Amino acid sequence: MRPKNRSGCPINLAVEVLGDRWSVVILRDIMFGNKRHFRELLADSMEGIASNILHSRLKRLVESGLLERSSDPDHKQKTIYSLTEKAIQLVPVLSALGAWGRRHLPATEELSVRAELMEAGGPMLWDDMMNELRQIHLSGLDPSERGPDSAFAQLNDAYEKVVVTRAKAR
Amino acid sequence: MRPKNRSGCPINLAVEVLGDRWSVVILRDIMFGNKRHFRELLADSMEGIASNILHSRLKRLVESGLLERSSDPDHKQKTIYSLTEKAIQLVPVLSALGAWGRRHLPATEELSVRAELMEAGGPMLWDDMMNELRQIHLSGLDPSERGPDSAFAQLNDAYEKVVVTRAKAR
Repeated sequence: MRPKNRSGCPINLAVEVLGDRWSVVILRDIMFGNKRHFRELLADSMEGIASNILHSRLKRLVESGLLERSSDPDHKQKTIYSLTEKAIQLVPVLSALGAWGRRHLPATEELSVRAELMEAGGPMLWDDMMNELRQIHLSGLDPSERGPDSAFAQLNDAYEKVVVTRAKAR
Repeated sequence: MRPKNRSGCPINLAVEVLGDRWSVVILRDIMFGNKRHFRELLADSMEGIASNILHSRLKRLVESGLLERSSDPDHKQKTIYSLTEKAIQLVPVLSALGAWGRRHLPATEELSVRAELMEAGGPMLWDDMMNELRQIHLSGLDPSERGPDSAFAQLNDAYEKVVVTRAKAR
């Protein structure tokens, strides 16, 4: 049984679920990087998460109803993690955190492009993003089938453009 | 010296500063409850923060540039904590967390009223709130001098109305 909540304040309850050093970063990688397997989340982690921490955080995110485990339709042996509706609705929270971090913390230019576009796009863009996440995580669409108008494709294009421009400038 | 950042991603950097079980809750109490002294933050804590944890979190929030310590103009012996501009700009983050928590977690009706109004008010209301926080925390205005149009006064009125209605219904 999980311990009783500290209070019924919605901000406190959100902190009880998300307030640690890794949960939001793992959700970011699943949401924006479409990393769905333990191995990808571990090997591609920019922040260098440790295997045992990743394991315990994924377990907690499943228990909190933010992730669902299932077996990968292509490799029955492998577990795939999917965002739930509850986690998909964190898009505005991640956008607000990114907008604040970009402005007040030593964020790099490349990694700030998507945060900047998400802030500028506002609630209409977040709705598009949430609908795309629903198609991928709740309805099983392959992300490669997303059209050219895809909100995520546009964010990733903008990000890649900055990476290429900076690589040329070196 | 603080350890090097894990990555330059703005979401990760925000998590490095805010990602623990207490920092956001303490900022909430200073922001919405205008609790400015250690004693108030400790004694009025809905979540029952422990004294040593409060002490270490306040210290870290000062080091991260989110709070400033000064001596209380009315009681020179006492330390008063003020939000910095960097912390004031967390209003949209707290609003997003509250909106999500209200919808997806077991929040009480009373404690959800302000989160609901903040979500409905959107960026225009957040700007008003941030301007009021600047007057109080950066320019030293006494909160009792806020006019009847004050965004915070309106949130608190709505909250108190629900508390009274529920008390009568019992």
